[in-house]
Amino acid sequence: LTRMTAIGIDIGATKILTCLVDADGAILREVVSPTPPASASAVEDAVAAATSEVLEDIGGDVTPIGVSVAGWVSRDRKSVLFSPHLAWRHEPLADRLSARLGQPVFVENDANAAAWGEFVFGAGRGFSDVAVVTVGSGIGAGIISDGRLLRGGNGLAGEFGHTVVDPRGPDCACGRRGCVDSLSSGRALERHYNAIEGSPEHGTTSGVEILELARAGKPSAVAAFHELGRWLGTSLGDLVMYFDPQIVLLGGGVSGAGELLTIPTERALAETIVAHEEVAPTMVRVATLGHTAGAIGAANLALKAERQEVQEVQAQLNA
Amino acid sequence: LTRMTAIGIDIGATKILTCLVDADGAILREVVSPTPPASASAVEDAVAAATSEVLEDIGGDVTPIGVSVAGWVSRDRKSVLFSPHLAWRHEPLADRLSARLGQPVFVENDANAAAWGEFVFGAGRGFSDVAVVTVGSGIGAGIISDGRLLRGGNGLAGEFGHTVVDPRGPDCACGRRGCVDSLSSGRALERHYNAIEGSPEHGTTSGVEILELARAGKPSAVAAFHELGRWLGTSLGDLVMYFDPQIVLLGGGVSGAGELLTIPTERALAETIVAHEEVAPTMVRVATLGHTAGAIGAANLALKAERQEVQEVQAQLNA
Repeated sequence: LTRMTAIGIDIGATKILTCLVDADGAILREVVSPTPPASASAVEDAVAAATSEVLEDIGGDVTPIGVSVAGWVSRDRKSVLFSPHLAWRHEPLADRLSARLGQPVFVENDANAAAWGEFVFGAGRGFSDVAVVTVGSGIGAGIISDGRLLRGGNGLAGEFGHTVVDPRGPDCACGRRGCVDSLSSGRALERHYNAIEGSPEHGTTSGVEILELARAGKPSAVAAFHELGRWLGTSLGDLVMYFDPQIVLLGGGVSGAGELLTIPTERALAETIVAHEEVAPTMVRVATLGHTAGAIGAANLALKAERQEVQEVQAQLNA
Repeated sequence: LTRMTAIGIDIGATKILTCLVDADGAILREVVSPTPPASASAVEDAVAAATSEVLEDIGGDVTPIGVSVAGWVSRDRKSVLFSPHLAWRHEPLADRLSARLGQPVFVENDANAAAWGEFVFGAGRGFSDVAVVTVGSGIGAGIISDGRLLRGGNGLAGEFGHTVVDPRGPDCACGRRGCVDSLSSGRALERHYNAIEGSPEHGTTSGVEILELARAGKPSAVAAFHELGRWLGTSLGDLVMYFDPQIVLLGGGVSGAGELLTIPTERALAETIVAHEEVAPTMVRVATLGHTAGAIGAANLALKAERQEVQEVQAQLNA
């Protein structure tokens, strides 16, 4: 009994993307709904409504559900321990949704889900060791090591955004100083641009506008991406020392800049790690699944987890 | 057909430790020989001689051999890509030894082998996610994530010693600045002690002497361990962000200081990572296998690898 489809749900700060995904990573059906701003239970209601809609379309078959959330997910992938955007604290999200929808549910950190999607279906195909860094308003990362998604002892592995690149750098909301997040995120891009332009600290030029200006060739906007890439590449030096990936993929909104971002990043990475003839330098490339990476990855992880549970039950029955 | 014993060989800078190790990690026989200083082939001869001695004792049975070396080991665990102490460059060590000894041979980085030994038989037992940091004259690390040893895309994962803790810190032989190695190794301990004592840069007090002085309660020697632990704990902040281990074990010669080292290290680690009620703080403890960790770990990894190869052959025969 092999499931062929799964549902992937990506709960973002402003919208919820619910997708029916097949075993090849193709999206067969897609529902976009706004993320209710107020309570965690309203978010749960919205997720359940969108999922029910997709489930009705495909009839009553068992369909594993993967949920991608910004936050810390427990090692057993059932609970959200903490979420910066939503009011979830030790929230048993998988069990709650499973009870409502009558389907197996698996929760995953959004950066991990996106990384898995890129590894299986995107720019990470064919590699065994891949780091996927999501550069949006903040920074997330997911690590695939020898074909396996790293989760860590508490489910918190891969917190690249809150490793320290400059101990004398700006204070970070996490309590540390000079975190990668504070120097290489979309928010940092705006700060770099304002600094280059000589604008006040909180300028009115958004990341999307800076990207448009850079594409149009405005030197200060291009320079802002170079500054971002310089910090990001330097920060990736330690990530490469720790995980030794064959390739680093950049996803998230800021990666829409393409080579405006990847070229200075790859250069700074190559500069911080002394070249060895024994080992090829790590490549930096753009992720290819875009905003659907999280939903596609979560769906595939759910499919995989459900198959494994079925196999374990069969092994017990045979024993 | 289940092997019960394996040979573990730890090639150190000054001596070669060759052990016959059983499946419970107990050392049944041990040969210590000096590391020939000159050529790589002389080292290979010395390893072959010590191993033949142990093999003769136990008769002709197939006995997998694990070799722990300071250096970069290829992902397939057959070659030494680079070694700082020995003249090995892309040296096919496993095949050479295997041809001479008539046994299956697996090579492993020394920090990885020691980490695996501690995980299976030492202070890491019962945990799924363990980081083992070897603090000797330099710094090595091996990472166990979800019960698996991390190797990376080129076999170089876990290079904690050459991650950067202070971008404005001392130059490191690796080409970077402010590496963990330059601030938290045994060599750094001597520098910290000399700085506290007001002695010249290259003092004559060795790490072993500083340890004796600290144990005898000399304040400047205790302070040197506190300074080392402060840097080490701060550096471990990023390691914990990346790998999320349940426990960090400190091995190597400097860890002989016990709580003189682990207490300031654990405190600095707790200070650099803001406490969360959702997750327990990472423990820092002393490794327990001592100087035999590498040989025991290498032997167990060889046993495991050989079992896996036998299973794969059986599966092919059954198919």
